[in-house]
Order: sequence, then structure tokens, then C-alpha cells
Amino acid sequence: MTKTNSGNFFEDFRLGQEIRHATPRTVTQGDVALYTSLYGSRFAFNSSAEFAKACGMPAAPLDDLAAFHVVFGKTVPDVSLNAVANLGYAQGRFGVPVYPGDTVTTVSTVIGLKENSNKQTGVVYVRSVGTNQRGEMVVEYVRWVMVRKRDTDAVIAEEKVPELPASVAAADLMIPAGLAAAKYDDVLAGSPHRWDDYAVAEKIDHVDGMTIEEAEHMMATRLWQNTAKVHFNQHTEGQGRFGRRLIYGGHIISLARALSFNGLGNAFKIAAINGGRHVSPTFAGDTIYAWSEVLEKQEIPGRKDLGALRLRLVALKNQPAAGFPFKKDDGKEYDPSVVLDFDYTVLMPRKG
Amino acid sequence: MTKTNSGNFFEDFRLGQEIRHATPRTVTQGDVALYTSLYGSRFAFNSSAEFAKACGMPAAPLDDLAAFHVVFGKTVPDVSLNAVANLGYAQGRFGVPVYPGDTVTTVSTVIGLKENSNKQTGVVYVRSVGTNQRGEMVVEYVRWVMVRKRDTDAVIAEEKVPELPASVAAADLMIPAGLAAAKYDDVLAGSPHRWDDYAVAEKIDHVDGMTIEEAEHMMATRLWQNTAKVHFNQHTEGQGRFGRRLIYGGHIISLARALSFNGLGNAFKIAAINGGRHVSPTFAGDTIYAWSEVLEKQEIPGRKDLGALRLRLVALKNQPAAGFPFKKDDGKEYDPSVVLDFDYTVLMPRKG
Amino acid sequence: MTKTNSGNFFEDFRLGQEIRHATPRTVTQGDVALYTSLYGSRFAFNSSAEFAKACGMPAAPLDDLAAFHVVFGKTVPDVSLNAVANLGYAQGRFGVPVYPGDTVTTVSTVIGLKENSNKQTGVVYVRSVGTNQRGEMVVEYVRWVMVRKRDTDAVIAEEKVPELPASVAAADLMIPAGLAAAKYDDVLAGSPHRWDDYAVAEKIDHVDGMTIEEAEHMMATRLWQNTAKVHFNQHTEGQGRFGRRLIYGGHIISLARALSFNGLGNAFKIAAINGGRHVSPTFAGDTIYAWSEVLEKQEIPGRKDLGALRLRLVALKNQPAAGFPFKKDDGKEYDPSVVLDFDYTVLMPRKG
Repeated sequence: MTKTNSGNFFEDFRLGQEIRHATPRTVTQGDVALYTSLYGSRFAFNSSAEFAKACGMPAAPLDDLAAFHVVFGKTVPDVSLNAVANLGYAQGRFGVPVYPGDTVTTVSTVIGLKENSNKQTGVVYVRSVGTNQRGEMVVEYVRWVMVRKRDTDAVIAEEKVPELPASVAAADLMIPAGLAAAKYDDVLAGSPHRWDDYAVAEKIDHVDGMTIEEAEHMMATRLWQNTAKVHFNQHTEGQGRFGRRLIYGGHIISLARALSFNGLGNAFKIAAINGGRHVSPTFAGDTIYAWSEVLEKQEIPGRKDLGALRLRLVALKNQPAAGFPFKKDDGKEYDPSVVLDFDYTVLMPRKG
Repeated sequence: MTKTNSGNFFEDFRLGQEIRHATPRTVTQGDVALYTSLYGSRFAFNSSAEFAKACGMPAAPLDDLAAFHVVFGKTVPDVSLNAVANLGYAQGRFGVPVYPGDTVTTVSTVIGLKENSNKQTGVVYVRSVGTNQRGEMVVEYVRWVMVRKRDTDAVIAEEKVPELPASVAAADLMIPAGLAAAKYDDVLAGSPHRWDDYAVAEKIDHVDGMTIEEAEHMMATRLWQNTAKVHFNQHTEGQGRFGRRLIYGGHIISLARALSFNGLGNAFKIAAINGGRHVSPTFAGDTIYAWSEVLEKQEIPGRKDLGALRLRLVALKNQPAAGFPFKKDDGKEYDPSVVLDFDYTVLMPRKG
Repeated sequence: MTKTNSGNFFEDFRLGQEIRHATPRTVTQGDVALYTSLYGSRFAFNSSAEFAKACGMPAAPLDDLAAFHVVFGKTVPDVSLNAVANLGYAQGRFGVPVYPGDTVTTVSTVIGLKENSNKQTGVVYVRSVGTNQRGEMVVEYVRWVMVRKRDTDAVIAEEKVPELPASVAAADLMIPAGLAAAKYDDVLAGSPHRWDDYAVAEKIDHVDGMTIEEAEHMMATRLWQNTAKVHFNQHTEGQGRFGRRLIYGGHIISLARALSFNGLGNAFKIAAINGGRHVSPTFAGDTIYAWSEVLEKQEIPGRKDLGALRLRLVALKNQPAAGFPFKKDDGKEYDPSVVLDFDYTVLMPRKG
């Protein structure tokens, strides 16, 4: 019997199945430094312990997306080792902030299964929940992936496509205990624009571009202990569909979020991931640009100091964002420069 | 109104203007590890908590240049986003050491303005002061940069060229509280040569060379949250003057300083930056060599255990330092291999 | 007199000579994060403080190979700066685990000297011992290297070839104080296979491959403050034997060990390095694969919860490990794909 993990194939999943993922991970200040080094993120809330304390936190929390990557990475060996495509995200929420020293563990539940008509693949929906060493939820989200079958003749016992809301409601956003914006310092944060200053349908060109190197995306992806083969092995990928290593989609989310600081400097905390699609693959040598659109302004029940913005974050490759490239005239197909269409919700301080 | 930061243009600065820079930064042991990883620095004072404690410090301080880069990085979005050239440094001093856990904030004051005769650019002089969470100065320096005007017709209210000394006087060097060399261990430090062994005009070839990769200089520059566009975007730089991303000048200073360990292993602490010039640009693929010249030996008032050396540190690209390449026969133009001419002051233990 | 270190030549070594190496190193959580980022290691014992505590440890220890690299790195400036080849390892033992905050120092003793008949080189055998700030041994090993003579006429006073055992005996393995496998969680560890499930002569293909970039191996090698010139300087290596920078052999050991998780996920602790040979050089762009063979199953005196496996770990370049390439039909020469032949001993939990 082989002792190596060949991952789950589509017929290995069962509705309601719970998967405890391996490799719990204690996050550290080393992860924080590497995150800054890889993405150049500048949100003062994550960069400065003093700034975070002024906002009521005990220390600077880990960047929300770093927490997401840690939780996501754990799921790869069980959920997506035999995936053909990562199709989407929904119902992503950020719970208790992650601090250096916390240990994160992930458990997933299979909430949907739908075989494709070709019988060669099927779509698996999992809800993954990351918790800290006290069992508190730190990140949870649903994602669905297309997974190969081992045996095309295998019969799937029970199928179900879960109903997933288009976005997380404002009332369901989790505000970290103690968080308060009364002493939020716009100058130190690097932006004078607060929640009140943004309007629905407003678009922001984040201007800057960042070119990706092989060493960078591999170091990032390994840091999250994400084992998807396509990111690391040029010997096999060189003979594959693209001739090159594919970049982990989460690397693009983090790069685009870091670029979005220029125009959204006070969007200091991610509260939800409503949805997201990796529209096209990216490769080393690509330069990533980004733009955002305000989709919704949400009041937060009981809070006058904080508001939420639901944003579309679009990442482009090798194309500046000035013209906000998105979809073609037919409104269906994406512009070929678009690599990420990400729908998420941020917290921002409101005017006094 | 755009919400993105387009940086200050020459006519936006005023004499005496104070700029509180964004993005305070808590430095951590992650930064220390990355600094070692990027430069291979071997000064035991920064590498070993036990060695630092034997020298009277509470823990191993952050490398002085890492502290400098953190302070410098903060100034870029306000001072040099529209810079044509970084022209020089003066009056750089290192104050209270920075330890993991400290939060560094930078404030700059405009101390000089001089429009160029073409009316398209001008030179801005700023004094930048980095402080820790207790308000203690950790690094301060003057730098001047040539900055574009937004509008060539804009009239500059008041101009002034500050007088800057050629070097920091020995009496103005700041010796960290508690620092003592009585238990300084030459064997652990890796060099038998103390302050007494160096002579003015002595030149040292640091022998080794280090080739730079794109991933390395970008990871370094992002770690300091330095946002200068030319370092990161191959899509635009590929169409620019050099066809390539420029390397942050501070990356070269750190590389040359790390190389200088071989010959200056006991120059364990930088006390001052007297001046510095980035003579030529560097690019990924360049191999950096370095040599030093002793410019001055300074006694430190009241200290028998420590002395100061004022050094010229010259970095070369793709040229070993054996012949000490510096200036051409006319004594004005630099040899084409020279990329950095850096004048700084170090502390060294003296013989008992 | 030159102040730069040109390293020891063969005639500079004396039997019994003790060398206190420079640059003590305090390891940190930054090193842990970089190690994960560079190798993608997934052993829960090193990844999670909670998992390590459940195994009786006070915190997650540094990866054993990271501790080895720190100890090894210190020896390079004194032992192998003028080495022609790194010939072998023996009697490697891991002692007290290294935790973030510990300071590691290395001392070596010359235990063998054998001049080659050409009088141009000789083989130096050193036993290197790394200790923490309490003087406890953390790693010790013997290695032998072929070192150039400065002067072919130099006469070698005393020669000796030490007798070295083929492997470390089970009774000599050091089990960290407090270590117990009673609460070892296979699911969190990521493998259902315990010591009992492995058989002598069993071979395991670790399946995955990892391509190496220049930035990665240089960042790793600098992190260990290893100063061997051949890893860093493309300007000189481009004119050398291979035309390229050579990768530090220890980088390949760490990569192969990380790949071996897939099939040996419960081999959570390295107890000994019995021997090892860097069979062929590796370069950036090479993709590393690995396979293992169980050489010996060892009971640990007095322990029912833990057993030891002596393993051969073979790393290959640009060749999947499915066919277990090793030696040619003559049983002497290695297959050209083999780059590492490493003999080491791991601890594994036993069935209850």
C-alpha cells in the first residue's frame, strides 16, 4: 500500500463529510515580516502595534488575507489536490483577529456535490472554518472546485448544489471585540478619505503596478503550506498546458489588496469575502495592476464610528487600470487583461 | 476628486513645512531574519542576543541600516514619489537602538528648496527624524532630491540652500546607553583587528561579490514599505530609460556594508552617515563588490573602550575591488564601475 | 598586513586543533517563517506550538535541519573557504531542541588530516559541535572536506584518518527531555502511518517536485551566514567550471526532507545524520524530486511510544522518483540524476 497522499477524487467526497485538515500552524512575527516583504502592504492597523492599540486591539493583528491563506492552505491536500479549477468563493467571514503566537487549525465540511455531465469531473462545495487555539473562528468561507474523478464509472450517491447568498449581510459582519475608531489617525494611516467620502459606483484606479517573480510566488505559497503542484514544478509544468508554473490565485488577491492601499488607505480591515473568481491564470513576469468599485455602502448596526464598504476589486495583468477594464461589450466575457474579480467587504472609520 | 496619492511636486513644498509620514512600523524578529537572508550580514552585535548583552545592551539591536531603511521608506510617498534623482545625504545620526517590538514613526521638515533654472524641477532638502514609541530619536538624516514641478509656471515663494557640514563631529556621535566594549569577544566577532589597528588612508578590498536577483531587491524594498515605482514595475520600466527595474539605492548600501564585514568585522555599530551618493544605477544580475578607505580616526570623548572610524565605502558593479576603482584621472568623474560612494562613521572596540 | 579573512589552507590545520567559530546566532521566529517559506515543510511538530506541547515540548522547536544549517554555516569561514569539495558527513546527532530565542555557537575540532598524493590538496576531518546559550549540545557532526594547500611544499606535521562508524547506534540517539507520543494526533500530523507500518527495504516515491530559483537558494544560504563564495557570485562563477552559481548542498537536503513529508509525514524528528554525500551539483532551474528507502528499524531502549527509522533519502534533479534511480548496473557509479545520497535516522510514533 502506498504511503503517499494522492488526494481525494470526486467520488471520494460525501455530502456532510467533515474533514479535519493536517498541519496546524502557529503564525508568528516572521509571517508578518514575510507578508510585508512579499506584498508591500501599508495598512497601519497591521503594520504598527501602537496604531492597533489606539484602535482598541491588544497588538497588531495579522493581515486578514494572511489569515485566509493559512486557513486555505490547510485544505489543499484534502480538497483540491486533484482539482481542475478553483471556481468560486462565497460567505467568507473574518472572525477573531489572528495575532502572532496563535495556532490556526482548519476543518472543512462538504456542503455540495454536482457531477459534470462528462462523468470525468464534478464540483465539490466545502465550507472551511479556521479556528485559533481557543476554538474561536478566525476565518470561514465556502469555496467550490472542479475535481477529477479517479474512475469515470464511479456512481455518486447523493448530489446537492447549495444555495449561496450573493454577499454577507451587514448584520452578519463580525466586529472584533474592542475595536473602536475614535482615536484612528488619518495622517498615520496615510489617507484623509473616510467611509463618508465614498459613493456607490465610484471607481478608483490604484495606479501602481507590481511585477511578480517565480521566487516570490513560490515563497508565498509555501509559507501557507499550500501544496498544489502546479505552482512549484517547472519540470512538469513546462510540458503542460501553459508551459509555466501557475501562480496561486491568493497571491494575486494579496497583491491587488496591497495595491488598493493607494485610494483605499482607510479600508483597514477586511470583514467579508462575498465572492471571487480567478478569471485568468497569471505567471512570473506578469505585472499586476488593480482597480476598485464601490458596490454598496453599509451602516453597521449600533456603530457610528465604523462603516462597511462592499467593493469589487479587479486585478489586471500587463494593463494599467486607468480605463477600468472589466467585461467586453456583451457584458459576459471578461476583458483579456482581467485576472481577478473579487467581491469583498471592508471596515472603514466614519467621520466624527 | 481622486483619492489616490500622486505625491508632492516641487511647488507643493514650503520652507519649514513639517510632514508627519504615514505607516508607523513595528519592527520584529521577522525583519531581522529577512535582513540576514537578504544581505548575509555577520556582525555578532546584531546576530546574537548573548553577544549584545555582553556589550551592555538588553538584546540584539536591529541592524542600523535596517532602522535607516524603515525610517527612509516612510518618507518616499511624501518626499520622493515625483523625484528625478536622489542627490545626497548629510548629518545622518543613529540614536537609541531599535529592538524587535519597537514602533518607528518618521517626521520630516523641509529645510531647503532651490528651483532649477529650467523651471521644470527643483531640489528639496528634508531633515527626517525617526522616533520609537517613546519618542526617542532612532535615526535622523538630511537628504536632498530633485523633484519635478507639476506646473512649470508655478512660482516658488521662498528658496534656501541649507549649509551642511561635511561630516558629523565625534562629539555629536550618540553612544547608546550602557554600551561597553570591555567584554567584546574578538573571536566570536570574527576579526582580531581593533580600532587601534587601522590607519588613515588605509584601503581594504572586501574581496567577495554578491549577485542581485529581482526577487531579492523587491522583497527588501517592500519590507521597508518604500513605494518608489521604478523598483517594482517591469511593465512600465521596460519601456523606460533603462528598460529595467532600478534597484533601491539603500539595497546597495546594505549589500556593501555586509560585504565590508570581511576586513571590518569589528566595525559593529554605525554611528553616523556623513554623506553618500548613488553614482550609477544597478539592476538585477549585477554583482556588487566593495572596498573601504579609512578617512579619519576619531577618539570618542570620555571613552577608552571605543573609537570611531570615518570610512568611505565604495560599491562597484561587475568589477572586483582589488585595484580600488574610484575616480578617473581628472579626479572628478567616477570610474564607470562605481555605483555608491558612501561616507559613514562606525564604532569599534579599542585595545585594552 | 591584510585584514581580510582568506580562510585556512590545508597546511594551517593541526590535529587536535580547536576552532571557536565566529558569529553566534540567536534564532528567531523569523527563521522559522523563512524556513517554511523556502521549503514548504509541513511537519506539525515544527509548525504548531500546540502540537509540540501535546508532545511534551515547551514550544515548537526549530526544524532540525535549520539548526544544522546554523551550526554548519558558522564553520565555513574557518573550515571550507578554500575547499575543493565537501566529501562526507558522519556521527551527526541532534541534542537539545533549538527554540526561537536560543543563541547557537559552534566549536570545531580537527580530528583527521590526510594529504593527497598530488601535494596540492588534503582532506580535513572536523567534529563540529553547536551549543545553545546554556552550553547544551544542539547539533554535532563530523564532516570532511578536501582543502587546497597554499604552498605545495608545506610539510604536514602529523596525519591521521579517523575511524568513523557507518551509523549512529540506537542507544546513542538523544531523545529530548519530555518528548512523548501518547497524545500524538495522526490526523493533524497528516499521515496514518506509524513506525510499525514501515518495513526494511521499503521504498517510497515522494512524488512531488520543486524547482529552485537563484533568489531562494541565496536567501537560504545567507540566512545561515554561510559565506562560501560559489553560491553568490555570478560574475566569477560565470567564468568558472559550471558557468553558474552552485547551490549549497544543505539546501537540497532541506528540500528533499520537505518533499519526504509525502510518505513520511510522521517522521517528525531527525535524531541522527549517519552519512551523506552530495553526488552532483545543482543549479537554479533544477527541479528536485526525492525518494526514501528504509534501511533499518530501531527500537529505542526503554520506549514503547517512539521508534527510530534509519532512512536513505535520495534527491534527484529533473527526474521523477518513480523508478527509484540510484546507482548504475555496476553498483558503483550513481545514476546521473542523483544529486544527494543522505543516510539519516528519524523518530516516529509507534502504535499504542
